[in-house]
Amino acid sequence: MRFAERLGASIERNNSLLCVGLDPDPSHLPEHLRDHPDAVFEFTSAIVEATIDIAAAYKPNLGFYIGYGEAGIRALAQLRQAIPREIPVILDCKVGDIGITSDAYARGYFDVWDFDAITANPYLGKDSLEPFLRYSDRAVFVLAKTSNPGSGDLQDLAVLEDGSTSEPLYMRVADRVGQWDREYGTGGIVVGATYPEQLAAVRERCPDVPMLVPGVGAQEGQLAATIQAGLGKTWPALTINASRAIIYASGGHDFADAAREVALELRNQINSLR
Amino acid sequence: MRFAERLGASIERNNSLLCVGLDPDPSHLPEHLRDHPDAVFEFTSAIVEATIDIAAAYKPNLGFYIGYGEAGIRALAQLRQAIPREIPVILDCKVGDIGITSDAYARGYFDVWDFDAITANPYLGKDSLEPFLRYSDRAVFVLAKTSNPGSGDLQDLAVLEDGSTSEPLYMRVADRVGQWDREYGTGGIVVGATYPEQLAAVRERCPDVPMLVPGVGAQEGQLAATIQAGLGKTWPALTINASRAIIYASGGHDFADAAREVALELRNQINSLR
Repeated sequence: MRFAERLGASIERNNSLLCVGLDPDPSHLPEHLRDHPDAVFEFTSAIVEATIDIAAAYKPNLGFYIGYGEAGIRALAQLRQAIPREIPVILDCKVGDIGITSDAYARGYFDVWDFDAITANPYLGKDSLEPFLRYSDRAVFVLAKTSNPGSGDLQDLAVLEDGSTSEPLYMRVADRVGQWDREYGTGGIVVGATYPEQLAAVRERCPDVPMLVPGVGAQEGQLAATIQAGLGKTWPALTINASRAIIYASGGHDFADAAREVALELRNQINSLR
Repeated sequence: MRFAERLGASIERNNSLLCVGLDPDPSHLPEHLRDHPDAVFEFTSAIVEATIDIAAAYKPNLGFYIGYGEAGIRALAQLRQAIPREIPVILDCKVGDIGITSDAYARGYFDVWDFDAITANPYLGKDSLEPFLRYSDRAVFVLAKTSNPGSGDLQDLAVLEDGSTSEPLYMRVADRVGQWDREYGTGGIVVGATYPEQLAAVRERCPDVPMLVPGVGAQEGQLAATIQAGLGKTWPALTINASRAIIYASGGHDFADAAREVALELRNQINSLR
């Protein structure tokens, strides 16, 4: 089944556009878990268990697992296995490399670890992403306009079109992702909730490409504007990611319950704005 | 000691600009190693041992280790420990993420695994790379113009400058890397040997920033043009990477000896063109 269909089914089942970001940071883990050898898996899998009927998708960010070295990678693989198949898991790895190396990454991320989707960086061009795009039952969420303050350094640069008119680089990327999605049916796009106007422009260009929007919660992206602008034209095609606001809702023994409470509230708030 | 000084010392010690890429691909490993549980480490560490007096640096590409799942990551960590400290090891991970996530990656790549340098993708902007640039004894090789055929999709786009003149995106990136290197002293830049003219233009813009040039050997980049254009103005500042041509020189029991032979020949050929 295509990823977009699976995401759509998950959105419907849990009546949710919420993607829960699983980003275990050593300085934020609940104190009673910090010295635990399996802290990362204990923490993240408890969050999953507490939000399994609320989340449309999960998004572990590779960086937070790499941060723990080998133990973190072990926890990541274990975590993926612990998440039920009906909820898509997007590995946020922002991958981008030349073709033969992308082949190797795709083997690891899709075949060995079995993630449903990945995030990818477009800077190396189409041939760098094709090894991922070719997996017909997975998806590739390509960065267009990221949520960070410095995203404009490159992404907002005015790119010449036909020698006269120009548009920002992230719009050119959105354009390409739309083409790749028409060609492979496995495209997706990332735009930060911190840039609602740019998000609206990207959605205009890619009416039904699955969109992953990080940056609400701790990054203070604008929720109402995000939903209004981000929904697809023929299906929701939107999942809104929050990480820190949910998973660090409490630093005590009740961290999972607190995460559930915040996730539930956020899901309902998003639904009330749809 | 700054990375640039360490690289310079290594270039001098082994009289070499050669960087040996350590990219273990399951379909190319010597047959007698393929079923071996520690094949990846056995293979890569034997290549290191055979080239230790020839290489200026080593560059394992993360993708080829991810391709083996957890076992690959274990091998990568083990391999790093097996390489003597006096030879810089550049992890080719093409990282690029928002600040807080880059903090986590930096902990993993620099503190836990102790790589001397990484490669990074500039698409997310300066704040995404500062967590790495701040490590005063490491280096960040930023992708400007990559060696793959599709690199022009984004990297060659004409970016408007002051509303009238324009230059390719990769030159704008080179410009920024030059600034970051002046600010932090830890910058580096990646340009593929498959694009010697672009390489010359980047070197003109960044006269002494350490440059990593992949794409010779299997990718058939142009060696003489690369060396002529790529050498720094006040110090060599250049390391030329070859992976497949060296490490797969033989698929038999003599793979390490064959790798040594090809590496030696390539090092000498490079030196004859300096």
